[in-house]
Amino acid sequence: MRVALGIAYRGRAYSGWQSQPGGRTVQDHVDAALASLAGRPVRCISAGRTDAGVHALNQVVHFDTPVDRVAESWLRGTNRYLPDDIAVQWCRFVPDAFHSRANALGRRYTYVLLESPMRPALETGLVGWTFRRLDGGAMTGAAAALMGTHDFSAFRSAECQAPSPVKTIRRVDVARRGAYWRFDFDADAWLHHMIRNIVGCLVAVGSGGKPAAWLGEVLASRDRALAAATFAADGLYFVGPYYDPGHGIPDHTAAMDWLP
Amino acid sequence: MRVALGIAYRGRAYSGWQSQPGGRTVQDHVDAALASLAGRPVRCISAGRTDAGVHALNQVVHFDTPVDRVAESWLRGTNRYLPDDIAVQWCRFVPDAFHSRANALGRRYTYVLLESPMRPALETGLVGWTFRRLDGGAMTGAAAALMGTHDFSAFRSAECQAPSPVKTIRRVDVARRGAYWRFDFDADAWLHHMIRNIVGCLVAVGSGGKPAAWLGEVLASRDRALAAATFAADGLYFVGPYYDPGHGIPDHTAAMDWLP
Repeated sequence: MRVALGIAYRGRAYSGWQSQPGGRTVQDHVDAALASLAGRPVRCISAGRTDAGVHALNQVVHFDTPVDRVAESWLRGTNRYLPDDIAVQWCRFVPDAFHSRANALGRRYTYVLLESPMRPALETGLVGWTFRRLDGGAMTGAAAALMGTHDFSAFRSAECQAPSPVKTIRRVDVARRGAYWRFDFDADAWLHHMIRNIVGCLVAVGSGGKPAAWLGEVLASRDRALAAATFAADGLYFVGPYYDPGHGIPDHTAAMDWLP
Repeated sequence: MRVALGIAYRGRAYSGWQSQPGGRTVQDHVDAALASLAGRPVRCISAGRTDAGVHALNQVVHFDTPVDRVAESWLRGTNRYLPDDIAVQWCRFVPDAFHSRANALGRRYTYVLLESPMRPALETGLVGWTFRRLDGGAMTGAAAALMGTHDFSAFRSAECQAPSPVKTIRRVDVARRGAYWRFDFDADAWLHHMIRNIVGCLVAVGSGGKPAAWLGEVLASRDRALAAATFAADGLYFVGPYYDPGHGIPDHTAAMDWLP
């Protein structure tokens, strides 16, 4: 049978989602926990491969297993084998045609940025940080240039393995709550480091280092050398993928209410 | 000269605020960082002694030193010597008559509680957790019994060293944001484990295990054996002390905007 899970994790202690020989990834822990429960190897496929240090609110995965267990067992049983910064949030049995990655219509991310003269402490590892004062209007204006379908090569890391640099951004929202800025992103898919590079550029605009029109020029150039520095992974959250509602895949987890 | 600092920290890695021989406390780190900067021993006095695992948003401390440095130096210099989950947020020079503990008119705490069938992961160590559904109206009703001046022996741990169990609670607010409950407390001073014991009782009422009137009965009994279990330190934040405005001590730090 095919099982889908929604997983929340704090990325700081891990080398990203994707399994690696060293075993220090989120997938290595999830696969091992599921294998302990199933009594045989399990390998998950995820909707998104988060980088080292990046968090997830609703990472959707699926796996196939001949082991017959109720959903409650996959859910609570797996959590007993997982470290305290990784936890399965829901479980659904899905048809064999469902594929967490291939069926995703898009992927939402949120970046949380502390604007303060002093560095974070309480929320260290959970937010990006700038000591510069940011202008929300300038950032919102600049972000408009990113909407729609473009070649995003200017925001792509050298290690990116995506077959095409052309992606469609459906939403970039900039909002403030007290000392924290929240950037909400939605696209069909994302290139490696794309959001962290975009955030670097938005901060360059917001702090007055670059004019709002500059972001559109960087995009049009398709030249990574023109964009600002990659922002820290600490503030980046994979909110989750979304699917045709017919699949019945939950798109909310408790931790989504935690962000500013 | 006398220097006052506001300090934010994530308490999880530490055995509380107060210096101990083992050196694993927040004060041990702060005193050592200040000593590195001053080139001689420094010993802080704090407004509140937080327990192991308890966080602080604006812990106010003061210390005396013959070393003459500008505020910016005490602020940024000290942060360079501190671990990433402790950071000074502001610095003020104060008259010798100012005393962070003795002058505090009261102390505010907030408890953040996740209500979810699944345990936390992203926010582990930063929230308490209950899988029971809670009734906010019942908790608010029960909390009213705590307001004012009472003998709080029923909520006091056996290790409490306070000279008197009589304290004055000025505020207990219960609010919900999504999956998170937030309990805001204000009193002249607090007994050891008092808030965590009160939260345990509020959850007992909120989950229907006890009627709302029970909290007042526990209070009146002055019997610790009647109260519910002590709730986890993970969700407890020392918001900070407050003073006569004439002292000019800041009562806000960026991290206060982080909580749900």
